[in-house]
Amino acid sequence: MTATAPAPAGRALPHPAREQIRLEGVLHALSDPLRLRIVRELAADGDELSCSFFDLPVTKSTTTHHFRVLREAGVIRQVYRGTAKMNGLRRDDLDELFPGLLASLLDAAARQEARLGEG
Amino acid sequence: MTATAPAPAGRALPHPAREQIRLEGVLHALSDPLRLRIVRELAADGDELSCSFFDLPVTKSTTTHHFRVLREAGVIRQVYRGTAKMNGLRRDDLDELFPGLLASLLDAAARQEARLGEG
Repeated sequence: MTATAPAPAGRALPHPAREQIRLEGVLHALSDPLRLRIVRELAADGDELSCSFFDLPVTKSTTTHHFRVLREAGVIRQVYRGTAKMNGLRRDDLDELFPGLLASLLDAAARQEARLGEG
Repeated sequence: MTATAPAPAGRALPHPAREQIRLEGVLHALSDPLRLRIVRELAADGDELSCSFFDLPVTKSTTTHHFRVLREAGVIRQVYRGTAKMNGLRRDDLDELFPGLLASLLDAAARQEARLGEG
């Protein structure tokens, strides 16, 4: 009966419902290189990944912060499964709201990596 | 001979060259509602527009700031023409670096406006 998405049992983390997701928030979430990298890895994997899967060159608390920004923007869904916090891309929600945007963003990120890697 | 774009005569403003434009910077520039609105208006018009064309609900100095963020990210080109500072979307540069991205972003912004306007 609320506007938010159904909460999983246990230690549920707050997520915006699909209709609460804002383009500006999504773009802000993806404007950081590490967050963009997280999203690319989630998209490439296609499945949920635990936070510990990501080998980011920052502290654990900074990593937690980046995942939280992505979750609060509606880009990823974070769910506790046992002792692991699992992260999944909200591809369906984003594709429904903004058709083609996520694919364009991922393509742009891949092109940039290819370009700068060659430089 | 420099990596930056050719400067127009007179009071030239610094711009990143095409190859200096970064996806993260573009996304950050577009993550603000007013800056996104500026870009949408420039895209809809298709031509250069003066800063004074935009009727933004903020002070002149804040408006200047937003245009500067867009310029420094490589999203717009700002050129003095006489006494007017003219702004143009760097569509060719963005389309070359990130094919389809600008179109997807503009479409996403239009969809969001239509959706929230109906709410």
